[in-house]
Amino acid sequence: MDFSEKDSVDAVVASFADTPDPRLREVTESLVRHLHGFLRDVRPTIAEWEKGIEFLTAIGQKCDEHRQEFILFSDVMGASMLVETMEAARQAQDATASTVLGPFHVVTSPERELGDSIDTLGTGEACLIEGTVTGADGVPIPGARIDIWQADEQGAYDVESDRQPLGNGRGLFTADDEGRYRFRSIVPSHYPIPTDGPVGDLLTATRRHPYRPAHVHFIVEAPGYVPVTTHVFVDGSPYLDSDAVFAVKQSLVREFATVADEAEAARHGLPNPFRRARFDVVLQPEGPA
Amino acid sequence: MDFSEKDSVDAVVASFADTPDPRLREVTESLVRHLHGFLRDVRPTIAEWEKGIEFLTAIGQKCDEHRQEFILFSDVMGASMLVETMEAARQAQDATASTVLGPFHVVTSPERELGDSIDTLGTGEACLIEGTVTGADGVPIPGARIDIWQADEQGAYDVESDRQPLGNGRGLFTADDEGRYRFRSIVPSHYPIPTDGPVGDLLTATRRHPYRPAHVHFIVEAPGYVPVTTHVFVDGSPYLDSDAVFAVKQSLVREFATVADEAEAARHGLPNPFRRARFDVVLQPEGPA
Repeated sequence: MDFSEKDSVDAVVASFADTPDPRLREVTESLVRHLHGFLRDVRPTIAEWEKGIEFLTAIGQKCDEHRQEFILFSDVMGASMLVETMEAARQAQDATASTVLGPFHVVTSPERELGDSIDTLGTGEACLIEGTVTGADGVPIPGARIDIWQADEQGAYDVESDRQPLGNGRGLFTADDEGRYRFRSIVPSHYPIPTDGPVGDLLTATRRHPYRPAHVHFIVEAPGYVPVTTHVFVDGSPYLDSDAVFAVKQSLVREFATVADEAEAARHGLPNPFRRARFDVVLQPEGPA
Repeated sequence: MDFSEKDSVDAVVASFADTPDPRLREVTESLVRHLHGFLRDVRPTIAEWEKGIEFLTAIGQKCDEHRQEFILFSDVMGASMLVETMEAARQAQDATASTVLGPFHVVTSPERELGDSIDTLGTGEACLIEGTVTGADGVPIPGARIDIWQADEQGAYDVESDRQPLGNGRGLFTADDEGRYRFRSIVPSHYPIPTDGPVGDLLTATRRHPYRPAHVHFIVEAPGYVPVTTHVFVDGSPYLDSDAVFAVKQSLVREFATVADEAEAARHGLPNPFRRARFDVVLQPEGPA
């Protein structure tokens, strides 16, 4: 019997019937249903479908050691944030909210001491970021690992920039005996996601702006706790209400207050005045939510 | 307001609201709906979604000048055949049925004279393929262009094989004054689609076989007519009932009859006996269907 529009889902789902792993079978069957649903809805010409194939191919070909264009595509389509939001719904609601990983976690953060600066160039506005990692019960988590990465004051990550050595704007910290962490940096700028690839072409063609509000990435983990991948957003940054990747959560926005205090600046090895943000992180214990 | 599962489609669709091209806007909006529908259905963990991103990235990275792994993915998911089937439904029903292009139309077919052989190695079973290109009214179409490509008797296309020079198994012919074409070749074998990439890994993991029944690809075109992209399938070939890419149409299956006729063989420059198939192609005139 010839393949037909009416029976296309059944025919292709049947081909996956012997999949041994039940989860893989579930995912492939659902993908067939939704992919065919999209095609029946849009009814592409063959020429249009070929353009779609070219677009996906170009996304894959744009990826390299320092560039993940498929994550970027997932991000601008809201897919990353939807997956993230569904995962967060499985977690306890009193833990720190998570948000998207993004495409720039492609370099291992250099191990640094508490209080160190993650910025080696000093061209931006100096800041101190500090906080405590605790469980939901408020008990500190000594030794928690805090992985940080951020763009600079011009909105560029190290891997995008000739100005910055690899590892700039990145640091891996270990919380002290009271679960505290602190590090020096510069206030990151809002920035455009990379637009020199197929995802940038899509944004241009659809008249979407590519900007993300200023933020610092965090992954915080400790044995016995569910790790959290999140950002702290800089209050007052442009694009907090129209993030190109839909990742802003109000609970993650923090004031980076200006501090003019000669003694305090000297104590942290910072110029006076400096900016200061506090971001306490609450982790959920592992085990059934 | 934070991004939520309930409002995810609305939030992302709204971001595409200023798309100037109405068709692009329609396609992106539908893609958002179906992509988010798939994600809400499957509810991937972040780790699973990362595996999905890795899979798509690997597909893109596998593509090169002679390999189109995204077409292969589209093929095994039945997407290519669904697009093809919907396009065919827009065409007149008395024209020759079309089927998938496949991933091997990556080398320009060498121009050849009617009666030439597209096989330069002579290792397979010799055959003659011939037919007439006409309009639906039966009127011949002189000068119709017939682009042919096929696998060899071991099931390999030139671009996959060290045994074959590029262009082997390919030919571009021009129909004579009575719309007739004929060429010599070898009977192609059934074959596995390429399995040394991510699509092969998917077939292995889902216990799907990678085989396609034996066939010869045709693209036939002439000014004033709708081009047709199709195959002629070899009757009796294995996998006619379980093509890995769902592309068999009963109306495209032809007997490759064995002919034992010394004079006829000599007339065509073929060994005796030889195989012979007739495939007449009917094109639809351009214009409203």
